[in-house]
Amino acid sequence: MSHIEAVQKWLTDNNYDVGYISNPKNIQYFTDFSSDPVERVLALFVFQNKDPFLFAPALEVEAIKDTGWPYSVYGYLDHENPFAIIAAKIRERVSNPKRWALEKGDLNVTRYEILRNLFTSSDFSGDLTPFIQNEQLIKTPAEIKKLEIAGKWADFAFQIGFDSLRTSRTEQDIVAEIEYALKKKGITHTSFDTIVQSGTNAAEPHGFPKPDKIKENALVLFDLGVVYQGYISDASRTIAFGEVNEKAREIYKVCLEAQLTAQSAAKPGVVAEDLDKIARDIITKAGYGDYFIHRLGHGMGQSEHEFPSIMEGNKMELQPGMCFSIEPGIYIPGVAGVRIEDCVHITADGCAPFTHTPKELQTIPVRQ
Amino acid sequence: MSHIEAVQKWLTDNNYDVGYISNPKNIQYFTDFSSDPVERVLALFVFQNKDPFLFAPALEVEAIKDTGWPYSVYGYLDHENPFAIIAAKIRERVSNPKRWALEKGDLNVTRYEILRNLFTSSDFSGDLTPFIQNEQLIKTPAEIKKLEIAGKWADFAFQIGFDSLRTSRTEQDIVAEIEYALKKKGITHTSFDTIVQSGTNAAEPHGFPKPDKIKENALVLFDLGVVYQGYISDASRTIAFGEVNEKAREIYKVCLEAQLTAQSAAKPGVVAEDLDKIARDIITKAGYGDYFIHRLGHGMGQSEHEFPSIMEGNKMELQPGMCFSIEPGIYIPGVAGVRIEDCVHITADGCAPFTHTPKELQTIPVRQ
Repeated sequence: MSHIEAVQKWLTDNNYDVGYISNPKNIQYFTDFSSDPVERVLALFVFQNKDPFLFAPALEVEAIKDTGWPYSVYGYLDHENPFAIIAAKIRERVSNPKRWALEKGDLNVTRYEILRNLFTSSDFSGDLTPFIQNEQLIKTPAEIKKLEIAGKWADFAFQIGFDSLRTSRTEQDIVAEIEYALKKKGITHTSFDTIVQSGTNAAEPHGFPKPDKIKENALVLFDLGVVYQGYISDASRTIAFGEVNEKAREIYKVCLEAQLTAQSAAKPGVVAEDLDKIARDIITKAGYGDYFIHRLGHGMGQSEHEFPSIMEGNKMELQPGMCFSIEPGIYIPGVAGVRIEDCVHITADGCAPFTHTPKELQTIPVRQ
Repeated sequence: MSHIEAVQKWLTDNNYDVGYISNPKNIQYFTDFSSDPVERVLALFVFQNKDPFLFAPALEVEAIKDTGWPYSVYGYLDHENPFAIIAAKIRERVSNPKRWALEKGDLNVTRYEILRNLFTSSDFSGDLTPFIQNEQLIKTPAEIKKLEIAGKWADFAFQIGFDSLRTSRTEQDIVAEIEYALKKKGITHTSFDTIVQSGTNAAEPHGFPKPDKIKENALVLFDLGVVYQGYISDASRTIAFGEVNEKAREIYKVCLEAQLTAQSAAKPGVVAEDLDKIARDIITKAGYGDYFIHRLGHGMGQSEHEFPSIMEGNKMELQPGMCFSIEPGIYIPGVAGVRIEDCVHITADGCAPFTHTPKELQTIPVRQ
């Protein structure tokens, strides 16, 4: 069954007349067409028994046709009213659509209210978001292959980053070197802003690279990933640039034990929140629980916001094909920050990481 | 009046008890705190007479405090229910909020429905989106200063791009050179994906750089911009790499005339759609109207999705301080594409561009 057919079946099983997919990444998942429409309207409408259609800005229509999309695509010019055209095209297929399923986790209230005003007697209670999250939860072998390649590029990026470290360079310079090397290899997009943080800067878990010089005899934290054919990588390594003090070595050791123990424990049947607890208990027992202030991991695939979330409260059982990060971190303000992360996919009896850069503490000699 | 005070006054004037700002870029506008929370909840709540508060993931709280934000900030951990905390904090300020104003152009339906379920007797008809768009419509001199600096970096980027052209390099290579040079100068973000398109590739108005070698004796289109202190630049230039044919020269000449004529005509009192028509008529009269398939321009400032939109149907009169792009384009599939764009701000008696790279057709000798 194709992805589109799965939507059609779900609409039929749940008695929805129209399904409206609005998130551009999910439109890519269902159509293979990738675009960022910004404030313009890009939409995929699916029906039980009629052909789906794409709706897009006029200037995207040729590109959509070039992808081999086998169904209709309708364009609109900037001065036209997109939802008036959409309503007419829907009514050509279903004259009086009663029950709708929207992508509620994506659609904004403005557009929701426009729809409600155009279809005043419709019921908009259906939500495609959980269905789509569930569809994307178990990755196919073809998807895992792409994630593995994306992971290899993350390993490449780490090596460039490690090799680029100089006390004469800033955190931002190292990012520039990493992204330049990736782009020269044809990797056009990172999955998020590449993070390089040196010394105490790494104690900000959602910080960003600064125009600060790389500190000698301090830890350097890298968090990075790329997009390969629509699939991402995401990994973190923390390394020593020169000789680091005992405290830094200690929190590294604790964080690594938490990461390795959780990664060894991840297998089918384990409950997501228990995996979080395995890592968290190690850090808490070592006295650093208050410095690990985020969940152990997030699902990933086409983005880093997929399921399963590896956190307290998530009772989901891991299954083969689920993909997520295992990324404990210890962030002590003013002292140091450590995060060690691999994304993995659950296999028949365990898990396999997408990235293979060594996790034992690496020391890179100080260079100017 | 500060930006926050303007929201408080608007809430008071319109009798709303709570204003909920959810778009991260707009939160930055109102608080000076910049972050991409991805799927986590970042929110700004404003009241008529009570202090506003920020709500953020726990791992962002320290960074918010560091910005000097003078009001409360509340954090939540990944396993906590963010809207339960939000509801409690709102009720501490307004025990029974009746009338809400949401940022309807941003807030998704899932979160909207959570709010409706938490505040069942509230009225959610208020919309902050038009108010915010209007607040951001007229830029202050301080904002224009930042836009000018962002513009200078776009000029720098064009020069790097022009200098980097080689027949041995791909479009993606040229992007790598441009972004590397910017990052080495401390410009960490482009305002959108840098576009370099050579020859017939440029005929795709929403295309992207390909792993195709730069063609000799063909036009090359650049569309790029940077973020400088939260404000963007956005400009396009098309240049000749070697000798281009008569057709390419002709569409360039028509596009340039449209761009220059519209830019000369932009001044206070001109209606947005009339400015579009001035450029469009020139292109249509020359026989290329069917190949100019987007509006003349978009508003810009913190992003390229602001007002005013320079397009048919927009009756807004231009006023000093409005900032927008003037970017006619002619895209002939299989032949060539040209776009020439400056962003400008309206002055007392005309307009001034943020970018100054020459617009007369430049020819760069072919290099290997």
